Amino acid sequence: MSNSADAARKIAEPNAQQAVRRVLDTVKAEKRTSLTAPEGKVVCDAYGIPVPKEGLAKSAADASKIASSMGFPVVMKIVSPDILHKTEAGGVVVGVKTAAEAEKAYETILANAKKYKADAKIEGIQVQQMLAGGTEVIVGSITDGSFGKLVAFGLGGVLVEVLKDITFRLAPATKEDALSMLDGIQAHDMLKGVRGGDPVSREALADVIVKVSQLVSDFPEIIELDLNPVFATKKDAIAADVRIVVDFDYKPRPAPRPTEEIVAAMNRIMQPKAVAVIGASAEDGKIGNSVMKNLINGGYKGEIYPIHPKAADILGYKAYKSVKDVPGVIDTAVFAIPAKFVAGALAECGEKKIPGAVLIPSGFAEAGAPELQAEIVEVGKKYNIRLMGPNIYGFYYTWSNLCATFCTAYDVKGHAALSSQSGGIGMAIIGFSRSAKMGVSAIVGLGNKSDIDEDDLLAFFEQDPNTNLIAQHCEDLKDGRAFAEAAKRVSKKKPVVVLKAGRTSAGAKAASSHTGALAGNDKIYEDVFKQSGVIRARSLRQLLEFARGVPVLPTPKGENVLIITGAGGSGVLLSDSCVDNGLSLMSMPPDLDAAFRKFIPPFGAAGNPVDITGGEPPITYINTVKLGLSDERIHSLILGYWHTIVTPPMVFARNMVEVKKEMEAKGFVKPIVASLAGDVEVEEAAEYLYQNGIPAYAYSTELPVEVLGAKYKWARGAGLL
Amino acid sequence: MSNSADAARKIAEPNAQQAVRRVLDTVKAEKRTSLTAPEGKVVCDAYGIPVPKEGLAKSAADASKIASSMGFPVVMKIVSPDILHKTEAGGVVVGVKTAAEAEKAYETILANAKKYKADAKIEGIQVQQMLAGGTEVIVGSITDGSFGKLVAFGLGGVLVEVLKDITFRLAPATKEDALSMLDGIQAHDMLKGVRGGDPVSREALADVIVKVSQLVSDFPEIIELDLNPVFATKKDAIAADVRIVVDFDYKPRPAPRPTEEIVAAMNRIMQPKAVAVIGASAEDGKIGNSVMKNLINGGYKGEIYPIHPKAADILGYKAYKSVKDVPGVIDTAVFAIPAKFVAGALAECGEKKIPGAVLIPSGFAEAGAPELQAEIVEVGKKYNIRLMGPNIYGFYYTWSNLCATFCTAYDVKGHAALSSQSGGIGMAIIGFSRSAKMGVSAIVGLGNKSDIDEDDLLAFFEQDPNTNLIAQHCEDLKDGRAFAEAAKRVSKKKPVVVLKAGRTSAGAKAASSHTGALAGNDKIYEDVFKQSGVIRARSLRQLLEFARGVPVLPTPKGENVLIITGAGGSGVLLSDSCVDNGLSLMSMPPDLDAAFRKFIPPFGAAGNPVDITGGEPPITYINTVKLGLSDERIHSLILGYWHTIVTPPMVFARNMVEVKKEMEAKGFVKPIVASLAGDVEVEEAAEYLYQNGIPAYAYSTELPVEVLGAKYKWARGAGLL
Repeated sequence: MSNSADAARKIAEPNAQQAVRRVLDTVKAEKRTSLTAPEGKVVCDAYGIPVPKEGLAKSAADASKIASSMGFPVVMKIVSPDILHKTEAGGVVVGVKTAAEAEKAYETILANAKKYKADAKIEGIQVQQMLAGGTEVIVGSITDGSFGKLVAFGLGGVLVEVLKDITFRLAPATKEDALSMLDGIQAHDMLKGVRGGDPVSREALADVIVKVSQLVSDFPEIIELDLNPVFATKKDAIAADVRIVVDFDYKPRPAPRPTEEIVAAMNRIMQPKAVAVIGASAEDGKIGNSVMKNLINGGYKGEIYPIHPKAADILGYKAYKSVKDVPGVIDTAVFAIPAKFVAGALAECGEKKIPGAVLIPSGFAEAGAPELQAEIVEVGKKYNIRLMGPNIYGFYYTWSNLCATFCTAYDVKGHAALSSQSGGIGMAIIGFSRSAKMGVSAIVGLGNKSDIDEDDLLAFFEQDPNTNLIAQHCEDLKDGRAFAEAAKRVSKKKPVVVLKAGRTSAGAKAASSHTGALAGNDKIYEDVFKQSGVIRARSLRQLLEFARGVPVLPTPKGENVLIITGAGGSGVLLSDSCVDNGLSLMSMPPDLDAAFRKFIPPFGAAGNPVDITGGEPPITYINTVKLGLSDERIHSLILGYWHTIVTPPMVFARNMVEVKKEMEAKGFVKPIVASLAGDVEVEEAAEYLYQNGIPAYAYSTELPVEVLGAKYKWARGAGLL
Repeated sequence: MSNSADAARKIAEPNAQQAVRRVLDTVKAEKRTSLTAPEGKVVCDAYGIPVPKEGLAKSAADASKIASSMGFPVVMKIVSPDILHKTEAGGVVVGVKTAAEAEKAYETILANAKKYKADAKIEGIQVQQMLAGGTEVIVGSITDGSFGKLVAFGLGGVLVEVLKDITFRLAPATKEDALSMLDGIQAHDMLKGVRGGDPVSREALADVIVKVSQLVSDFPEIIELDLNPVFATKKDAIAADVRIVVDFDYKPRPAPRPTEEIVAAMNRIMQPKAVAVIGASAEDGKIGNSVMKNLINGGYKGEIYPIHPKAADILGYKAYKSVKDVPGVIDTAVFAIPAKFVAGALAECGEKKIPGAVLIPSGFAEAGAPELQAEIVEVGKKYNIRLMGPNIYGFYYTWSNLCATFCTAYDVKGHAALSSQSGGIGMAIIGFSRSAKMGVSAIVGLGNKSDIDEDDLLAFFEQDPNTNLIAQHCEDLKDGRAFAEAAKRVSKKKPVVVLKAGRTSAGAKAASSHTGALAGNDKIYEDVFKQSGVIRARSLRQLLEFARGVPVLPTPKGENVLIITGAGGSGVLLSDSCVDNGLSLMSMPPDLDAAFRKFIPPFGAAGNPVDITGGEPPITYINTVKLGLSDERIHSLILGYWHTIVTPPMVFARNMVEVKKEMEAKGFVKPIVASLAGDVEVEEAAEYLYQNGIPAYAYSTELPVEVLGAKYKWARGAGLL
């Protein structure tokens, strides 16, 4: 938590919290679901959220003094229990601009009131700061089923409503979060002052956001809050109207398990010393047969215990009637039996104290049998067994040679850990990985996510020495807040890439027909992912390419990207891609420009891109890339290769790999990606480059830049840039 | 031109045009560059562009009558050559709301004026319609170097400025164009009436846009025009302020060549009976050698004439000192000599009446020698030789077995015609085509575009029976208007796909360093492409995939798209992609839903996507796809395949191709695309599907939908949907 959030908390403790509690107690006692305006003001005052100043004047002199102290203009209103229709009674004067006017307005209102109702009991005249000018913005809070308390920010006005230009963060938000919200709306330039207007005070606005986010976090029963509008000026941000909705039955999600507890169980499940296969089978084509074969043929070195009601032996392994009959400890039980038998077998696993069950069977919530799923969840809770699935392909953990799945085996060891909610996507991960020769540490199916979830995997992979990137496909997040908190922590160490399916309303509809999960508002996912340092993949292919490419690249030391290209045309497209992917094309210092020009033909173009032109021999690529790697002002390189007879694809590729190694030996380690334009030989060259640490793509000027862009997104989120 | 544009033209002829001409003559005579407000009003009146009504009252009764006739409120102003500061003189009354008030205001103004200056000569009191309420919008026109006259539309106000929410069309715009502009801004919902407000009159607004576009087309010297704001209400759209800037030196681009003339020349150049190679060489590694070998080995059946100062014979072909020495007719001269010799040899081609020169050499404008390029352009004009290049790889026309290039040969015949401004991108086209087994009709390098341009190619390919799709990479359009006009015509018959590089300002900067071309404002390209029916590719890979996939698909007969998937997870991602690509997921009628349910397991999901679930045998895919193809309410299918042992990839692929053929034989011809999730065998299956008319992609839920989306964009633009 930042200092600013600390400060808000300080303000809010303990008297402030008591003040809010008193208001809420009254609302609750009166069985209301919302606060009155004065109650709203009390709450805002307690948390230091600025609202218009006001005071009760008992005399004209008093009115003048109060008004002067709060600044003009003010609005003045009769306060009388006997006068309900203030305006009708002539009891309101707006736009009072001077002390003299305030005195005069006091007398006028009083006279009008007496004329209106001679015997009215008059308590005084309220003097209130009149807000106008500045930029109208909205600060609010909503309560989301998955993410819990969220704070929202947007501009006021109907056009913004039409454009849905609003941004969210998890509450409580830090000051940094709040400031990022001001930059996170499309129309952020409005806050900077346009057409000669003043910029708003970013400090003041951020302060309101932080305080609102703290308030709703302290009082979860506040399920909706709207400050609309807030008038933001160069010196302050004042909420003109406060609307607070409460639900005293609202229960926040229970806190997730402690990370150590998650990790302890997941370590045993993912790297088991012994695996039981419940429903193991000797019969080809059965799921329990495929699982056995994958375990055996995959080279798993631990114990394998087939569980079968009758067989004595399956595929050469001694079989048991129940896990309870197995003599040794079991870490992981893989289920390959029909849904209706799962609960019973799971209870036996519980008695055997097995920490985890991999539930391959379908036929639960996804197939209209939520009661079956509820039953296994209960058993899991009772015995503290973690459940993976049901309705999954299982999982792979390559560093233990473990294929706990009925799908194709996969054994290329590497450092990317992937997971998918859907089995189909899991198969796409396998296929892509094999095709691209992508090494993985693990591939995990999450299916119905009755228990083990994306955040459990994050906790495991965070401390797994074999994993250096985590890529997840999901259709929903059952506990978005737990995910976000885990992701925020983990992404500081290892890139977390997420493909959130059901982005669009059509996609979300398909998602809900598929898993019964209600897909959340996509804009919330977008913002929370960003807040949590998650790299969002826009497509399945992008998820896979990021998983493959991001770990290959070293972390850049700065934002300056340089394009060196043999094809001017590629240079233009690569530049477009840099902008699309949030990369900064370095502006070329004159001395460096001169240095590059020494290596390239006179009709080439230095600047950025460095256009070495198409007909150049390998030495021109070598010289310019060496310069690009050695100059400390350049932090990353994008290469554009153009296939020519003078520098054939593999000559280019080998030279680049050599240059990279040579410069690395001298301490110059920078991300390099490459786009290859040419005849089919460039495919082999791209493959060679990729296998040697330079993500390279044939016939594409976008993919290499997307991969570099993802690396930068991660590095920025992790605070490394 | 639509009726509406016709109507505008009718209004504007001939008296209206004369009225505008008189105003412009005065402005010109007075050496001004802009019109006064009264002049602006005359121009608007002439073209029927509504401006506030006004009249001169000579009496109070008169004022009341005039005001009543135009509707309240009105503003009234003294008209006197002796009173310059009207407000100071008390000579202005705003917000006059009734006939009685108008009479009173007349007297008041008159009295004030007399008090202000007793001897002032008073001509009367101007009564002017006062505009307020409604939605403030902007209608304007700018003059672009490439596209000429453009009409612009956006909302008024600073927020819109900040968001740059404005849309353009070529002028003159039809009523349909104008209406599409109202939908073409991001905040288009504002025009529909929000928060209970009235919608604007679309007719009235479109009418203003059409008339403005006609005005600037009739008078090209009007280089800028702003109606800002226009008050748009449910009954009218009135321009409150008119600003017109003129440049009497402005020269519109000359009209492009007549299409027949372009086609006559291009047919000879692209399908020559005889080719001369200027700078032909017997020496390996020389460009003139590569060109000769490509012509000979490519199987070109026409005459080949090597031109060489000394050689008697090159690679077995009789050589000539000059094209002038060649006995027969020559259609195409391919240049492979240094830049400085090109002009001379070109003049000889002119004398020989060769219609086209393919200028491979670089060293012209792109290399800082614009004077050399200007020289060859002059020679080209003098002799009416069309110039391709300079600074290009040449071109391929596969149906004549013609490789008039020094690059790798390419001979896979097909129906996609591709062109690129950049040589590197040309090589990427070759490589991708070979790798994807994509047949092409032609690949053309345009390089510096000293003469032959994208629109010349459009005219040629439009009538080329071997071409059914045109895909172009460009960094700029020298004559955007000629391109747009050609594209608008051609895209009605054949899809036109364009990758415009230099989309972003960084890209545009790289483009200008590369070719000396100033990249245009990308939003203008975006809008004009849309107006012209051009499918815009967002990336190089997309350009290539569209070129490959779009011609494979039949034209859909309607907007209803259905997803049939074995993997629920793919279904969600495919749904997302449909939304991203502007496709409409059909909402499933109950009878069809019931029909699909008969084929799928009870826990599968009908609706759309139809989720047949993962474990199903081939017959489930077959039944559901047959139903999808035969029901007339469904217009396109997207298949999501999930690799299982029950239905292996090639089994799925063969079955789908069979079903497609069987249903086609019965007259059910619909676009089908497929996404394949599975192990590497799905790559072979995807290839098989693609070669048999079903664009299919492994490990991607985006690419197949993008290709289908492009087909739909084309069909809509061509008026086929």
